[in-house]
Amino acid sequence: MAGRYEIRFSGAGGQGLILAGVIMAEAASIYDGIQAVQSQSYGPEARGGASKSEVIISDGPIDYPKVTKCDALLALTQEACDKYSHDLKEGGLLLIDSDLVLREPAGNFKVTKFNITNTAKNEIGREIVTNIVALGAMVALTGAVTKEAAEKAVLARVPEAFLELNKKAFHVGFDKAMAAKA
Amino acid sequence: MAGRYEIRFSGAGGQGLILAGVIMAEAASIYDGIQAVQSQSYGPEARGGASKSEVIISDGPIDYPKVTKCDALLALTQEACDKYSHDLKEGGLLLIDSDLVLREPAGNFKVTKFNITNTAKNEIGREIVTNIVALGAMVALTGAVTKEAAEKAVLARVPEAFLELNKKAFHVGFDKAMAAKA
Repeated sequence: MAGRYEIRFSGAGGQGLILAGVIMAEAASIYDGIQAVQSQSYGPEARGGASKSEVIISDGPIDYPKVTKCDALLALTQEACDKYSHDLKEGGLLLIDSDLVLREPAGNFKVTKFNITNTAKNEIGREIVTNIVALGAMVALTGAVTKEAAEKAVLARVPEAFLELNKKAFHVGFDKAMAAKA
Repeated sequence: MAGRYEIRFSGAGGQGLILAGVIMAEAASIYDGIQAVQSQSYGPEARGGASKSEVIISDGPIDYPKVTKCDALLALTQEACDKYSHDLKEGGLLLIDSDLVLREPAGNFKVTKFNITNTAKNEIGREIVTNIVALGAMVALTGAVTKEAAEKAVLARVPEAFLELNKKAFHVGFDKAMAAKA
C-alpha cells in the first residue's frame, strides 16, 4: 500500500464498530508494520442512531487523524449510509448490508453488498459477530491490510471463549465479499 | 466545563486503555451532552510496550482530534510515564500508579498517586478492572465529566456479568483519588 488510506465503519451504536476499527488499526500496525490511527467522534447526537468509527492507514506518519476523503465505507444501516456516505470519494468502495440498506447513495462508487447481519445471525449463529463478518469483508475489499494480519488481530482482541466463532465470522465475511465484489 | 480539555490514558498494551477512553468520551457525549473525540495512534512500535488512548472533550465542535497540550495524564507504567509525559502542560494533572511509576517526570504538575493496579487486583479482586479503577480516579481528578455520567457510561460498556465488579472498581478508584488528591 502506498500513501494514506481512509476507512469508515458505520452502522448503529452497539454494533461493535469501534472494535472493528481497533482491529483494523492493530492489523496494520502490529502485524503489517505500517502506521494507523483509529478514532471516533461523538457529537451531542450520540445517544442512539448512527455511529461511526474511522481508521487511517498509512506507510508514513499520520498528521491529521480524521477522514478527509473516505476511500472505503461500510454501512450496516440505512441511517448510517445516508449520514456518512457524503464524503466517500469518486470510485470509492461502498460495502452495504443488502437486507438493511435499500436506498444506495448516488455517485460513482464500487458498491458491494450481501446480507451481513443475517450471515452473522443465521450462518455463524450469533448476531454479535456482525462486526467481525463486516471486518472480514472490508479486509477482502480494500486490501488495506493483509488477511493474515487481520486474522491475527481479530484473535488477539476477542474473548478466548469465542475465538473459533470470530475466526469463522472473519473468514465467512472475507469469502462472501470476494464472491460479491463489485 | 468551558473550552477544550485533553486527556491521555497511558500504560501497557492490553490494560484496557482504549475502553477507558471510549467510556470517558461516551460519558461526555451521551450522558453529559457535550462533544468528544476518542482516538489511538499506532506506530511501527505498536507491538508490546507503552500504549495510549486520548480523549478530547469540548463544549464546542472539535476540529483537531489529537492531543496538542495534555491537560491530564494517567500513567500506569514507568515506560508510559517516560514516553507520554513530555507534552503534559504546566500545572496539568498527572495520575500515576504508586507501585509501578517510581521516577516522576520533572515539571510543574499536580501529581496524584495510589496503588491503582494493586487496588484492582487485591481490593476488587480482578486485575482486569485496573482500567476502570483508573477511570474512576481520572473522573474524580479532572471533573471533565460528571460522576453520574461516567458511572452510566461504565455500566453501558461492560459485560452484564461484571456490572457490580466494574461499578465497585469505578467507585473505589474515584474515592481513592479524592483522598490522595494533590
